[in-house]
Amino acid sequence: MNVVFVTGNRHKFHEALHILSAYGIHLHQDTKGYIEIQSDSIEEIVLFGIKEVMKRARDKSAYIIEDAGLFIEALDGFPGPYSSYVYRTIGNRGILKLMEGVKNRRAKFVSCVGFCSKDSDPVLFKGEVYGNISWFERGSHGFGFDPIFEFGSTGKTFGEMTPDEKSACSHRFIALKKFANFFMEYEKERA
Amino acid sequence: MNVVFVTGNRHKFHEALHILSAYGIHLHQDTKGYIEIQSDSIEEIVLFGIKEVMKRARDKSAYIIEDAGLFIEALDGFPGPYSSYVYRTIGNRGILKLMEGVKNRRAKFVSCVGFCSKDSDPVLFKGEVYGNISWFERGSHGFGFDPIFEFGSTGKTFGEMTPDEKSACSHRFIALKKFANFFMEYEKERA
Repeated sequence: MNVVFVTGNRHKFHEALHILSAYGIHLHQDTKGYIEIQSDSIEEIVLFGIKEVMKRARDKSAYIIEDAGLFIEALDGFPGPYSSYVYRTIGNRGILKLMEGVKNRRAKFVSCVGFCSKDSDPVLFKGEVYGNISWFERGSHGFGFDPIFEFGSTGKTFGEMTPDEKSACSHRFIALKKFANFFMEYEKERA
Repeated sequence: MNVVFVTGNRHKFHEALHILSAYGIHLHQDTKGYIEIQSDSIEEIVLFGIKEVMKRARDKSAYIIEDAGLFIEALDGFPGPYSSYVYRTIGNRGILKLMEGVKNRRAKFVSCVGFCSKDSDPVLFKGEVYGNISWFERGSHGFGFDPIFEFGSTGKTFGEMTPDEKSACSHRFIALKKFANFFMEYEKERA
């Protein structure tokens, strides 16, 4: 089962490759990109994006895209859908500075996977995990905001987890697992 | 001379109305919106947006859109093209917190106006003004980041300027003035 993952982010691609290989799904990377719109809703961004990808899809391939964001309760959801831009500019240091003296550390990571193929309308799969913003950066695994996100009640940041540990519990894992279960049924029906 | 300004922001609309009336341009508001893409470049966002507006333009009207952002040097350009979202979430207080203890206060406001009509390809007009991030919010005029942007060497924030004062020097004024001069020539040629 072949699936094309449209993403320029090699970290995301390797996380997804790792997760989906357990389902016998062979992932290929397409770095051509797609139009990302501005929206407060990650689902809206992914739905628009996967429709764009579908327009240029000329073969029978199955395509996925993924968008994710860190939503911090005390900051009204910031950085949310603009997590990538915010990481590139103010980074983890900026987030920790904004959270100085803030008692409510609650945050969630949201991932949305969008799927399409020539035989299917777009379908979205969402994964959410809850945790807290740490008081300082910890760990060197993962990417982006991983070192400042303490997962659940483990006390460990995503940055302190090995790739295997993170892949077994992350927002991206939850969304991709939903996609994988859907896709296996989808392939059966087509066979 | 009639021009339709596609914007949901009534502050922007009234600033533009004020500025363009001096040129005999009658501005009408269209609040239907358009697709804003994610990009580090305001010009790219406006070019995409004005092409979208053009697709739905069914008459001979002239259309403009405008996007603007605050680019802070010490924050690698943050909040830049996402100024509106950042204002709605962390606001002026968040920016001031990020700038606590930061000596380099340099910032610029950038405005880009996009024009199109059935007889014209998209044309962009850019306005930039330089200033500094203040140490606290000052003034109650304007909107968004106006109370924390000290304009040039005046020492006044945009929030401390009357609408007339701001309209005579702002980034939006510069971009709209460029558009107005272009548009008057354009109308002459069509007459």
